[in-house]
Amino acid sequence: MNLDALYSNLTIKTGAKLALIVLDGLGDIATKAQDELTPLEAAHTPNLDALVAAGVAQGRMIPVAPGITPGSGPGHLGLFGYDPLEFLVGRGVIEALGLGFTLKPGDIAIRANFCSLNEKKLVTDRRAGRIPTETCQRLCALLASKLKKLGTTEVHIVPGKEHRFVVVLRGAGLEGPLTDTDPNREGLPINEAKPVDPKNAKQKKVAKLVADFYKAALPLLAKEKPANGFLLRGIAHQPDIPLFENRYGLKAAALAVYPMYKGLAQLVGMKKIEGPQTIKEQFERYVAEYDNYDFFFIHFKYTDKYGEDGNFEAKKKAIEEFDEALPIFLEKRPDVLAITGDHSTPCAVKGHSWHPQPVLIQSALSGSDKLERFTETGANLGSLGIFPAKFLIRLMQANARMFDKFGA
Amino acid sequence: MNLDALYSNLTIKTGAKLALIVLDGLGDIATKAQDELTPLEAAHTPNLDALVAAGVAQGRMIPVAPGITPGSGPGHLGLFGYDPLEFLVGRGVIEALGLGFTLKPGDIAIRANFCSLNEKKLVTDRRAGRIPTETCQRLCALLASKLKKLGTTEVHIVPGKEHRFVVVLRGAGLEGPLTDTDPNREGLPINEAKPVDPKNAKQKKVAKLVADFYKAALPLLAKEKPANGFLLRGIAHQPDIPLFENRYGLKAAALAVYPMYKGLAQLVGMKKIEGPQTIKEQFERYVAEYDNYDFFFIHFKYTDKYGEDGNFEAKKKAIEEFDEALPIFLEKRPDVLAITGDHSTPCAVKGHSWHPQPVLIQSALSGSDKLERFTETGANLGSLGIFPAKFLIRLMQANARMFDKFGA
Repeated sequence: MNLDALYSNLTIKTGAKLALIVLDGLGDIATKAQDELTPLEAAHTPNLDALVAAGVAQGRMIPVAPGITPGSGPGHLGLFGYDPLEFLVGRGVIEALGLGFTLKPGDIAIRANFCSLNEKKLVTDRRAGRIPTETCQRLCALLASKLKKLGTTEVHIVPGKEHRFVVVLRGAGLEGPLTDTDPNREGLPINEAKPVDPKNAKQKKVAKLVADFYKAALPLLAKEKPANGFLLRGIAHQPDIPLFENRYGLKAAALAVYPMYKGLAQLVGMKKIEGPQTIKEQFERYVAEYDNYDFFFIHFKYTDKYGEDGNFEAKKKAIEEFDEALPIFLEKRPDVLAITGDHSTPCAVKGHSWHPQPVLIQSALSGSDKLERFTETGANLGSLGIFPAKFLIRLMQANARMFDKFGA
Repeated sequence: MNLDALYSNLTIKTGAKLALIVLDGLGDIATKAQDELTPLEAAHTPNLDALVAAGVAQGRMIPVAPGITPGSGPGHLGLFGYDPLEFLVGRGVIEALGLGFTLKPGDIAIRANFCSLNEKKLVTDRRAGRIPTETCQRLCALLASKLKKLGTTEVHIVPGKEHRFVVVLRGAGLEGPLTDTDPNREGLPINEAKPVDPKNAKQKKVAKLVADFYKAALPLLAKEKPANGFLLRGIAHQPDIPLFENRYGLKAAALAVYPMYKGLAQLVGMKKIEGPQTIKEQFERYVAEYDNYDFFFIHFKYTDKYGEDGNFEAKKKAIEEFDEALPIFLEKRPDVLAITGDHSTPCAVKGHSWHPQPVLIQSALSGSDKLERFTETGANLGSLGIFPAKFLIRLMQANARMFDKFGA
């Protein structure tokens, strides 16, 4: 029996409130350089400690598969209960959603950067000197005004921050993925976008459209400085993803600050709540919106950001900032709370990694693992074990008593 | 998406050095008879302890599936990253490779024993009194000289030690597995080799060839004493296994003493390094060959051998012998080191078992589980958890930073 179908068949709506707090890149590794403590272990977290003391279940999660380091897309899809190997989402799709552009299934979304080209058409700056956002908006408006269609295919151009924008191709018979046109370093020409599967006619059609787009757009930018070219990455179509509410019977809201995480939440059909800029504000808004949704996804970016920088102290402080705000959240304690990361971002790696991230679940039925704190080392000993991240939401649903018994 | 394809797509060659030390049958169980200590726990292992204190990740591995006791073939295939349920390798294939016979995909390899038959053609000694190796060589030469072909199928006969030899059938349209002709106890006649899948025409063809082989060979041995017959086991074809170097981007060498493990390593395309007879010599040779390969498989047999004997003290001493030699190995510390068994061989079982074997991984990114020693009980608490053995090499590759990030 298909497992998703089983879960679906057993699902009961109970009106329970569920909340998933994602401290991006939370997991870390213990090294001698930091006295064998991870940032989570080194951080002063009295509120989290009190939560753990009241009784939680802990464990660790494998984001995709053993040894695989996920990007934010696969990392979050897993947290939302979608197998990242089954639901593949391109970077362009995520960026487009993050900028508030509503994609339709089948749309091709492309992440674009303005760049600088020399007279030989070689890339001299892959980010065009990080032009101001206003310049980006002006150039996107210019392109959009002249390039509404390529044949019968609609073209949408959405400006982002600084040198970034998104191109969306909307029409029949389009499919990704294609290779990037970004040569990934300066001194090289813009690459041709090629079908990843050379036999796929729909991908070939997109390759032709991308070439036509360059042909029409580059002359429009010819006199611009320094942004007289652009590079395309993550050329892919919006996949057909079952909506969160249909899949889990939960009306979901997302409280995220960064576009990509808003985009990921929207991709599965969560309602994007705009406004809050800090974790304190996100928690305040959660309290205000408590009655309006069944499921809250709250995303905190800074653990990942400082892990990427290899900044142990800052990652530790980010965790402490989260901890300090936690009592606001707990004013309206949900029936089921999960706190975790979408992956590990160890300071020693200065990037995402494959190390399973720690997770805790707190509910009336989570039981207590009798651990004093929420840490990587403690999570190794927890009752949840080490499990694929895609099952987290199923465990949350179970804790919310949302599943009927299977079989008699 | 297929997981092996994903790993393959993400693989980067980094020039990192990886080493896998297999203490065959390492895992054991704690029993009251031995003060609740396993041989690994009871052994004096100062060098291993120092390695652990410097920071390693620990866990336990399921060789094939829960409750399944593997032979050496499936045990090692799992360690080499090949799902033992997908890649089935017959014992004859392993023996042939161990004797240095180069098999081709599709060859049928059969493990054979000379035996003694009485006048009623009943087996009176399944090992023909363990005839000297020289006798075996003479009899194999006799058979080989008279039996070069069966119809269009080539026949190769390779002598082994004492009563053991290997028969290889080479021709088009052959496939295994077939049932053994060995009745497994004295007083019974030689069995007929039957297709495991009665509808498989290629297996039926092999069954006919085996019957023809007996018809031609038995008369040649009729006057020999005590080896006037032979029993066949593990009748199977060489499977088409993706080569280690293509699969992992690692040029691999095997330092094993016993033929079977050399054969298993060769089966996946590792280079067999001949010469060393003790673990000390194996480690010395590893140091000498360090620059020539990316991956080293070092096999130590005695933990298994003494486990099979139920000899706790000897198994403990074998571990201590390994530990004493370990500093030689560590003169050239690889970027990623894994130490484990291919399965457990508990003294109380006197044979292989299904108990997950302990494993440790040491690298700059392994992190530390803050455990004092490498033991079965400690490994239960480690950050690697309990996982299928086939993922070990993927975790080693991840520790070597050989995988690109998956998705954006």
